[in-house]
Amino acid sequence: MQKLDVAILGATGAVGQRFIQLLNDHPWFRVAEVVASSRSASRPYGEAARWVLDGNPPANVADLTVKSLDDNFDSPLVFSALPKEAALRRELELAAAGHVVCSNASANRMLPDVPLLLPEVNGDHIDLIETQRRKRGWRSGALVANSNCTVMPVVMALKPLLKYGVRRLHLVSEQAVSGAGYPGVPSLDIIDNIVPFVPGDEGKMETESRKILGNYAGGVIEELDMVVSATCTRVPVLDGHLINISLDLAEKPRIADIIADWEGFVADEPVPNLPSAPSAPLQYLNQIDRPQPRRDRDAGAGMMTSIGRLRECPVLGYKFAALSHNTIRGAAGCSILNAELLGVKGYIEGFPASEAALAG
Amino acid sequence: MQKLDVAILGATGAVGQRFIQLLNDHPWFRVAEVVASSRSASRPYGEAARWVLDGNPPANVADLTVKSLDDNFDSPLVFSALPKEAALRRELELAAAGHVVCSNASANRMLPDVPLLLPEVNGDHIDLIETQRRKRGWRSGALVANSNCTVMPVVMALKPLLKYGVRRLHLVSEQAVSGAGYPGVPSLDIIDNIVPFVPGDEGKMETESRKILGNYAGGVIEELDMVVSATCTRVPVLDGHLINISLDLAEKPRIADIIADWEGFVADEPVPNLPSAPSAPLQYLNQIDRPQPRRDRDAGAGMMTSIGRLRECPVLGYKFAALSHNTIRGAAGCSILNAELLGVKGYIEGFPASEAALAG
Amino acid sequence: MQKLDVAILGATGAVGQRFIQLLNDHPWFRVAEVVASSRSASRPYGEAARWVLDGNPPANVADLTVKSLDDNFDSPLVFSALPKEAALRRELELAAAGHVVCSNASANRMLPDVPLLLPEVNGDHIDLIETQRRKRGWRSGALVANSNCTVMPVVMALKPLLKYGVRRLHLVSEQAVSGAGYPGVPSLDIIDNIVPFVPGDEGKMETESRKILGNYAGGVIEELDMVVSATCTRVPVLDGHLINISLDLAEKPRIADIIADWEGFVADEPVPNLPSAPSAPLQYLNQIDRPQPRRDRDAGAGMMTSIGRLRECPVLGYKFAALSHNTIRGAAGCSILNAELLGVKGYIEGFPASEAALAG
Amino acid sequence: MQKLDVAILGATGAVGQRFIQLLNDHPWFRVAEVVASSRSASRPYGEAARWVLDGNPPANVADLTVKSLDDNFDSPLVFSALPKEAALRRELELAAAGHVVCSNASANRMLPDVPLLLPEVNGDHIDLIETQRRKRGWRSGALVANSNCTVMPVVMALKPLLKYGVRRLHLVSEQAVSGAGYPGVPSLDIIDNIVPFVPGDEGKMETESRKILGNYAGGVIEELDMVVSATCTRVPVLDGHLINISLDLAEKPRIADIIADWEGFVADEPVPNLPSAPSAPLQYLNQIDRPQPRRDRDAGAGMMTSIGRLRECPVLGYKFAALSHNTIRGAAGCSILNAELLGVKGYIEGFPASEAALAG
Repeated sequence: MQKLDVAILGATGAVGQRFIQLLNDHPWFRVAEVVASSRSASRPYGEAARWVLDGNPPANVADLTVKSLDDNFDSPLVFSALPKEAALRRELELAAAGHVVCSNASANRMLPDVPLLLPEVNGDHIDLIETQRRKRGWRSGALVANSNCTVMPVVMALKPLLKYGVRRLHLVSEQAVSGAGYPGVPSLDIIDNIVPFVPGDEGKMETESRKILGNYAGGVIEELDMVVSATCTRVPVLDGHLINISLDLAEKPRIADIIADWEGFVADEPVPNLPSAPSAPLQYLNQIDRPQPRRDRDAGAGMMTSIGRLRECPVLGYKFAALSHNTIRGAAGCSILNAELLGVKGYIEGFPASEAALAG
Repeated sequence: MQKLDVAILGATGAVGQRFIQLLNDHPWFRVAEVVASSRSASRPYGEAARWVLDGNPPANVADLTVKSLDDNFDSPLVFSALPKEAALRRELELAAAGHVVCSNASANRMLPDVPLLLPEVNGDHIDLIETQRRKRGWRSGALVANSNCTVMPVVMALKPLLKYGVRRLHLVSEQAVSGAGYPGVPSLDIIDNIVPFVPGDEGKMETESRKILGNYAGGVIEELDMVVSATCTRVPVLDGHLINISLDLAEKPRIADIIADWEGFVADEPVPNLPSAPSAPLQYLNQIDRPQPRRDRDAGAGMMTSIGRLRECPVLGYKFAALSHNTIRGAAGCSILNAELLGVKGYIEGFPASEAALAG
Repeated sequence: MQKLDVAILGATGAVGQRFIQLLNDHPWFRVAEVVASSRSASRPYGEAARWVLDGNPPANVADLTVKSLDDNFDSPLVFSALPKEAALRRELELAAAGHVVCSNASANRMLPDVPLLLPEVNGDHIDLIETQRRKRGWRSGALVANSNCTVMPVVMALKPLLKYGVRRLHLVSEQAVSGAGYPGVPSLDIIDNIVPFVPGDEGKMETESRKILGNYAGGVIEELDMVVSATCTRVPVLDGHLINISLDLAEKPRIADIIADWEGFVADEPVPNLPSAPSAPLQYLNQIDRPQPRRDRDAGAGMMTSIGRLRECPVLGYKFAALSHNTIRGAAGCSILNAELLGVKGYIEGFPASEAALAG
Repeated sequence: MQKLDVAILGATGAVGQRFIQLLNDHPWFRVAEVVASSRSASRPYGEAARWVLDGNPPANVADLTVKSLDDNFDSPLVFSALPKEAALRRELELAAAGHVVCSNASANRMLPDVPLLLPEVNGDHIDLIETQRRKRGWRSGALVANSNCTVMPVVMALKPLLKYGVRRLHLVSEQAVSGAGYPGVPSLDIIDNIVPFVPGDEGKMETESRKILGNYAGGVIEELDMVVSATCTRVPVLDGHLINISLDLAEKPRIADIIADWEGFVADEPVPNLPSAPSAPLQYLNQIDRPQPRRDRDAGAGMMTSIGRLRECPVLGYKFAALSHNTIRGAAGCSILNAELLGVKGYIEGFPASEAALAG
């Protein structure tokens, strides 16, 4: 199978680098264009980017010449790791120009016709693209977003529990520094310290979780009706957001039932067969002191959500901890999984028939 | 004024060292006896103790010969930083033998006749000593405990709000490693990591908070009737426990009213005049990203509680963050403040009249 | 090819765990026996071991019952991660009993007839086993050691420069906490701190480096005649020892020549074809601020040594930095590579002919 | 005694903040003017500065209106914490306009007529101001610099050993992140990591140490003739630079002699009586694992240099570790001590007679 060319917008930033790292040797996609601000444009990527991940950028990408965001791109598929302001219009322009844009930016997430896609949780929202294309007059283009990195472990853990009626949700996050990008959090602010505030994230947790868990019907998303309270804090951890979750359910399942729900959770076809899908979306850890960011963030190559410490909450009924890798599952990895689903579902022009891909 | 001799039990441990550090140049007390396990006994303190605080132990204490826990002590006042098992019987024996014991150990905290004392919050509980002495037949001895270090910032913040009727309390802590003593938390467990579980602390937060905030009348403590849910996590911070607090109040004061309550909070006489009392028990920080452990733990020489981020909680009504230094306010410093109050209230034999002390 | 059974001594410790992790899915070896102190014996490994690496122990090892060090073992090949005292006699006993013992312990490293083996550097020292067997009357058994984890990057970097005559060597290490095992370094000692002393390591750097780089001839090792000065410090890094190296060479090669020596360095056959050998033993990094522990320790799956910052030293002639993963290349990984070489060289009874193994 | 008004240039930066913190309640000086870039000018300091030290800025300084660097200043004494480029011309202009400028910037340090002053080490270099004023035609103005923060502990430790003839010096630093200012080192670069390169510092260690230890005679400084090799690394420590020092002396004193030299070292009059002078310039720590940044940086309120681990170096003769607080002794605190000496020596117009000040 010939690989599909993709472009990475915001390729020199921390999430852009994660896209490049994860797409190295991807079976379906090939990084053909790297795009950054005009300051980096026209330079070889290997020089323009200060690589902050382990090791060095893949040699074939290091040799690419960085393009400017104003350029035209050839790749049918575009991953966006742009800052919010830069993403706002450009993502829509590129979709209008026929590109399928999978965005990690927050700029357009809450537009009513943009799916906030997490394949294991709301794969059916992908069909909102029909509404999007019809409304905007786009033919081959599309814009699909993934959620904030802190929302991800929450909605993953809640999905199998929706049947019990999630009424109220109380969240306290302990977030890694990579969530703030690079240079991001100064070391003088975070060594031997906690910053009990993460700009913007509390609101996103309250709004995005309702949209992701919402119901798609009749061409629109109806948000889930639940009350959410979020507190976001920053801790001296490199990768991996841990969320302390308390929740009130309409029904009162037993602890063992909930664990069984998590352990039995599988995504709908064809998600489990996509190249970036982990062997299971969730794992429940029985050790009393897990999940831990460093020890569990890389489960499923960073795509699995780890849950632990489920017990009764005297105030809200149930409480537990959930953890995902914030720049893999919570950002670049999820965008790539979204793109894989878009391809298989026939939303990307030029992408081979799904059978071929999945067999490939 | 001649200083009162004090003995430190568990003097070589992390909290024992903090006692020694804080009592250096104390206006009323003088460290006369240092007590540790038989392994350390008979050696000079400066050799027996692996000093883990900054700098080195005070020279006069370094020269003291370490006593064994089974020895008899001459000091009328005893501070206990013993491990739970060692504290269980020995603290009671020493009180029976006539010593006033101010304990940081958890062993005897929840005994009905042991005051769980925090002078700014429940100074009147001190009179439970009358019950204690009568019931146990003690004449000059007494046993007074201070609470778990994680409970401290919670009850300090709640005290001025009790008038609104605290019904439900939801707590998520981010606790410093010094709370586990020395050697305590291995670096391999906590660098670039969080451990979402602290053995024993969740239960203590739920029980001790109700006792501290309880009502003393008729010789007994009636615990406060409120529902508490606590989650305790360990973070890579040296000192300072941060607690994310959500609460449900019977009345619905305005945000500004609550802040005014905190800013106007003063302890009853004579607490504000005690040598270890901070200029104010609480400070409310207006910056959006405070309190922070490293930047706020030393407020009031580690005895002030810092609060910030008060805002509405969609689930429970109100939420905010509170922080105290866990080995000063939350341990040794609180025990010392308790002892100062005991002295001034006439509970320590041989302590000069309160007027002289407070004037001194 | 049928896999050879191996036993891991000290299997519950930090290095023991690394052996188990690295041997998971090893093409030649299979963990058949896990051995620990009597405290852990008779329990399933998954319960007895507090797993400190990422994730969880491999399921097949977790189910093994831990044996006691005094038991007899069936595995022809034994990896030792024992503490020094435990290793001293037991390793020799097991070798006498016919086992090939590859040890990471320091206990027997400097015995004249024990090869201190690092395949890329002194693969020919393996034949010292002939002397060992003859002298001790062993038939199939053998004892082979690998060096201290801090010595490893030094001798790897020096090997290609021996031809210039290494006369004096000045070393300052910045060592990771995992080098002290588990629980090892207390977090209270190392967060926001450096400990400028690592017990025992300075002496080992000075003696072991001379033995490893020595000449094997006539059945004995003649140590390299060079003057070594080592300072060892501990830093808040999880894995990866960085060594700042200054050296005086008899000849005065150009900077570019030395870099070319490193980049062209390959081990003698059959080392490059062993399963645990990295694609190259060394990499030279051109970035001014590399190597860095976190970003470079995993190069070559933790088996590659990274070098950078080569420049003139006004005092000694040349200086640079070298880095290796201390528990992979510097411990378990090196022992495994040693065992692979022993197998291929015919030193392990029951191991298939080398051609078969290398053909894999 | 009426306090002298001082201006702080670069007042919002990390070192500027340290100046403000250390000058709070200073017996001789009063912060009257705070100066920053035009972005901060005209705003109250409390708003313009993002305070990165513990707690909050002193209230009286928080209320000052920030001035722009182009403004005229009234204060006779000016402390400069400017970035290099901003310092280059402006410091000279202010000195020409009659201000005494004590600078922490590197810009003008190596000008032949600018004293690189460290009172305990080269207090006599202060008279280079005569040369400076004569040559430049300045009447009351002067420019005095202090050295790079990494040089400070080195020259402090060497001063008492100069009599033995320091011939060669080999330095490997482990430097705190505060040395890079704010925002400075990104947390993504330094958590669980070392950066083995600090831009510019290696050169400064080699040149500034020779100037500071040089001889002042005949109106010029003759640099010390010694060979210096420096390697600078950055570690995850907040404050305190640790330097691993090896040195070659012409004479061969015994270890005990050197320790006695350090312990007996006192600065010449009137330095020991200046308000910011520590009780002793140096302390030698006998514990095998000291000095440590966190535990020793605050010795002498951050103005004392701690030394430990003196032993023989097989390569150069002697080796040891030295540590100073990099933003107190190594920056703001040293500038303030310099100013105190300038005042007492009569170099600041309007400063009271030295007797009055020292008696004060």
